[in-house]
Amino acid sequence: MAIRITGTGSYIPSIIEKNEDFYNHKFLNADGSTINSSNEIIVKKFKAITGIQERRYVKDNQINSDIAFIAASKAIEDAKIDKESLDYIIVAHNYGDIKHNTEQSDTVPSIASRVKHLLKIKNPKCVGYDLLFGCPGWIEGVIQAKAFIASGIAKRCLVIGSETLSRVIDKYDRDSMIYSDGAGAVIVEKSDEEGGILAHETATYALDEAHFIFFGETNNHETTDKRRYIKMYGRKIYEFALSNVPKALKSCLEKSGKSITDVKKILIHQANEKMDEAIVQRFYKLYDMQMPEGIMPMSINLLGNSSVATVPTLLDLILKGELEGQQINKGDIIMFASVGAGMNINTIIYQY
Amino acid sequence: MAIRITGTGSYIPSIIEKNEDFYNHKFLNADGSTINSSNEIIVKKFKAITGIQERRYVKDNQINSDIAFIAASKAIEDAKIDKESLDYIIVAHNYGDIKHNTEQSDTVPSIASRVKHLLKIKNPKCVGYDLLFGCPGWIEGVIQAKAFIASGIAKRCLVIGSETLSRVIDKYDRDSMIYSDGAGAVIVEKSDEEGGILAHETATYALDEAHFIFFGETNNHETTDKRRYIKMYGRKIYEFALSNVPKALKSCLEKSGKSITDVKKILIHQANEKMDEAIVQRFYKLYDMQMPEGIMPMSINLLGNSSVATVPTLLDLILKGELEGQQINKGDIIMFASVGAGMNINTIIYQY
Repeated sequence: MAIRITGTGSYIPSIIEKNEDFYNHKFLNADGSTINSSNEIIVKKFKAITGIQERRYVKDNQINSDIAFIAASKAIEDAKIDKESLDYIIVAHNYGDIKHNTEQSDTVPSIASRVKHLLKIKNPKCVGYDLLFGCPGWIEGVIQAKAFIASGIAKRCLVIGSETLSRVIDKYDRDSMIYSDGAGAVIVEKSDEEGGILAHETATYALDEAHFIFFGETNNHETTDKRRYIKMYGRKIYEFALSNVPKALKSCLEKSGKSITDVKKILIHQANEKMDEAIVQRFYKLYDMQMPEGIMPMSINLLGNSSVATVPTLLDLILKGELEGQQINKGDIIMFASVGAGMNINTIIYQY
Repeated sequence: MAIRITGTGSYIPSIIEKNEDFYNHKFLNADGSTINSSNEIIVKKFKAITGIQERRYVKDNQINSDIAFIAASKAIEDAKIDKESLDYIIVAHNYGDIKHNTEQSDTVPSIASRVKHLLKIKNPKCVGYDLLFGCPGWIEGVIQAKAFIASGIAKRCLVIGSETLSRVIDKYDRDSMIYSDGAGAVIVEKSDEEGGILAHETATYALDEAHFIFFGETNNHETTDKRRYIKMYGRKIYEFALSNVPKALKSCLEKSGKSITDVKKILIHQANEKMDEAIVQRFYKLYDMQMPEGIMPMSINLLGNSSVATVPTLLDLILKGELEGQQINKGDIIMFASVGAGMNINTIIYQY
């Protein structure tokens, strides 16, 4: 028995926010002090490190469950399955539904229930729940689908990663330029074919790392705004990721019984292009190898960091032939990997 | 191989809010109109239907992850296990951490990461995630632990249900009297003993029912308060629960291979005493039987509806001999059942 991805879908929001659109922002340091650079310089440096040129935002009338539903519909269509045959709808997100110009996150009912409602699925045995696991949430959802299928509890699961980070960004914070909105979805099911999920690894580092990504107040200390926004200690995350992700990749690959030379693609969560390159280079260094060209498909330049949506969207773009120069062929060994709030790290070795 | 609960813990917040404490509230109908009854009459009717005399609230300086941590510590101690041996920390909740006098729910990092941090667990292979599934979230967490253990992914899981509903109640709404705060936790693990989880059933009804429990504005239409609160269509939920929960209990019992006469206790989620009695009576009626006396232990009179915390807290109280006239003995067949936002229904048949 194998557990395979049989369909993919994604939704890339229509509003393009370019780096130049941040020129008129008043960026401040976390302590509220002024940054001694022009916005043009700040944006240029930002681009050089993260690789981000533009990002996507949902329209004012859209919420997270709306875009999760669109990606889910596409994945169901792509897999050519009857939606009523789904055993699970697993939605990975971190902030629920936040309406435009409101502060509160709405998570009751769950986003999964909302998606099931929008999909008009009648079958009550199709169970919908939400999974909060930081940016690695979508990969974790696939791992949970694996557990349900391997234990005989389910045969077919819809796993969605959907987030509207544009609703939790502090416009006074340079890091706000990182975040983006998006949704990606896959159908994971029991299969008689070979391949599919060969191995997985997950870890939660919470002793010192739990609050590296957190909810905090605006960098503008002169407002009365007590609203909280997504915040991070970028340097700490960078060091943490570089120390731990390459090891996790290696450990998972060993578990799968495959060799480093079998690996055709690494689809890694993208928050920072330089960080991802450093992670994958270090991974290959563990095998005394150079990182092969084209091994790590990137979408960050145009899509930014859409949290749980990044990896499934990237997969969908490649499979649909929409990422230039990138393809996945039958039999290819690929790796999914993510690191994010928790701090959580996870990896899947997958054979197409 | 069996999957068994090997330890339990709970935290009952120290602040007691009595029915009389609501006498000075200004209750309004959902449309903002005045209720033509005195508060004494409203409270009396409320008590007659729900069975609730008092409920518990956390202190102003406590948040949801704090009380989840206390319940978790007790469950770990009760199971006499090394905390570092946990493979999963699964936290069921619905509203995250909401600080006193704030609106925003804080879910990054996950409550599971916060609990792991507070427990000072070093082992990164102990994976923490949050599960949103309405009031049935804790039972669903036990089902997910079963999937991890049955599939060989895990051996030992900590499953917590923790909620601070006092942070999302509309004081102008009579229904605010239902809600309570609390946390319950169990250790679920692979065991060589017999019994444990014999069967489970889960369902999500989202076609017409998704928004029976929702986030809505205050009943006081004269304020400028745009904050949203927990809201429900009580009558619709009552009818839905009565139509669907008895069938779910029967279906699960049949799956387990046990007989109705084997059942010693039904630990059901408690939001309304009359509704629970009607559900269990109807369940027994499916077997042409009367509901046996004492089959359904109740804590709602003193603890109100603490959402995901209700069932694990009830279990803990019984096992610790703290619920008068109630006990569970070795070999007893018990049922866990819940219905809530989603709308979700789930059941477990468990042999002690």
